Amino acid sequence: MVTPHELRHSSAAAVRQACRRGLWRAPTAGLALGYVQANLVIVPADWAFEFLLFCQRNPQACPLLEVTEPGQTEARLTAPGSDLRTDLPAYRLWQHGECVEEVTDVSSYWREDLVAFLLGCSFTFEAALLQAGLPVRHLEQGRNVPMYRTCLQCHAAGRFHGPMVVSMRPFTPAQAIRAIQITSRYPRAHGAPVHLGDPQAIGIADLQRPDYGEPVDIHTGELPVFWACGVTPQAVLLQARPPFAITHKPGHMFLTDLRDYDLQDCFTPVIASSV
Amino acid sequence: MVTPHELRHSSAAAVRQACRRGLWRAPTAGLALGYVQANLVIVPADWAFEFLLFCQRNPQACPLLEVTEPGQTEARLTAPGSDLRTDLPAYRLWQHGECVEEVTDVSSYWREDLVAFLLGCSFTFEAALLQAGLPVRHLEQGRNVPMYRTCLQCHAAGRFHGPMVVSMRPFTPAQAIRAIQITSRYPRAHGAPVHLGDPQAIGIADLQRPDYGEPVDIHTGELPVFWACGVTPQAVLLQARPPFAITHKPGHMFLTDLRDYDLQDCFTPVIASSV
Repeated sequence: MVTPHELRHSSAAAVRQACRRGLWRAPTAGLALGYVQANLVIVPADWAFEFLLFCQRNPQACPLLEVTEPGQTEARLTAPGSDLRTDLPAYRLWQHGECVEEVTDVSSYWREDLVAFLLGCSFTFEAALLQAGLPVRHLEQGRNVPMYRTCLQCHAAGRFHGPMVVSMRPFTPAQAIRAIQITSRYPRAHGAPVHLGDPQAIGIADLQRPDYGEPVDIHTGELPVFWACGVTPQAVLLQARPPFAITHKPGHMFLTDLRDYDLQDCFTPVIASSV
Repeated sequence: MVTPHELRHSSAAAVRQACRRGLWRAPTAGLALGYVQANLVIVPADWAFEFLLFCQRNPQACPLLEVTEPGQTEARLTAPGSDLRTDLPAYRLWQHGECVEEVTDVSSYWREDLVAFLLGCSFTFEAALLQAGLPVRHLEQGRNVPMYRTCLQCHAAGRFHGPMVVSMRPFTPAQAIRAIQITSRYPRAHGAPVHLGDPQAIGIADLQRPDYGEPVDIHTGELPVFWACGVTPQAVLLQARPPFAITHKPGHMFLTDLRDYDLQDCFTPVIASSV
């Protein structure tokens, strides 16, 4: 095994190699700082158009970084040389919407009809918030971010529909304004918040009882600020119950070669290359 | 028939109605100023995933505004109440990559498996350039913008692959810098240029012989500046020769309810709505 210290300032490729060689099986937060970490969702080709359409229609919850061709195991555009079957520390296998197994390598489950979706994640904008000197409460408290199902409906696409899941971070009004400015610059890492203030206005009854993650303290004078969350596509996907799907295990993300800075653009600019 | 003057400051919905009633059959440039005009591409469902993937991978050439479900005739998200079969002034019908007919209504050709793609167009960023006081040469000269096939390769997706087509506008260096700033703000209207200066570096032999559109004058001290062009997806699509496709007739665009200002974001923000 390698230590977190060794991978903290390594390249994304080194983290992928460590996973591939079985040397890293833990969450990826704090590894290869500055590189973009991605959510992974893999579905059969006959579900892929509808899922891609769902992502296209709900880009705050599902910011697309890359989508593979059926059967393609490499993230060619965002992580050349990668192998999506081996380069994450842990995966979950799903059948008809139920998690049936957690594994560290999906090579033996691979099929020629599988399409992989890499989606931006909140690690990117949290790094930017911290760099701007804003406190991120769940990190301060050493907890998982609190997440809530809302009454905000995603735009449906084929068999995929359902409520938006949001993550919450408390801020003073002045901090909230700054946090909105900063996260607005990261459209491919969920972008600007979708709501702030009254939780009931978006169907959240009790902030101390999140649907996912853990509650955090909210101090006097602070507002809860809500961002579209990467749990949304997973929740919607699993509710649609495709016969087979693969995702990353929560917190065990895929490391791309993109830099956090790249997600300030809504797409990776074309690098001129001749025929 | 209605006059251009009547539709110049009308709503997008009024232009769609005029088309639907057969009262407008001409190009849409200059109509419903401030509203976003869109390129239209319609393909059968079994080609839709690959085309969506192509757009997702080549967002500068193919900025997605909306994609419909198979058989859906309304652009529900960007033009509620619209009918994509009747609301454009003119369409082209394609079979195996050949244009077989131009029509003003595609209702009788509609099929339950058709998927429509609405893509941003350069009208939006040209309006912004003009508002910023920059001269747009082809408009000054009353010509169609010159467009060129390049040696820049698009990212392939399934059966879709080919070179990027670019449009060119000449500017002084100071104007070019300003034009880059302004168009960078419109990621869903092709965004920033992909090249400036030496045409041969991107495989263009002679600026006075464009592959599409008309040549324009380039004054001493001006640089050619090149943007990814909405002709790219059409060229790539037709080269792939799907058995059937529908597009708008060039210049005869679909009017959405989006405002030009909206394309400064890489997606239309979620409007909070409860269940």
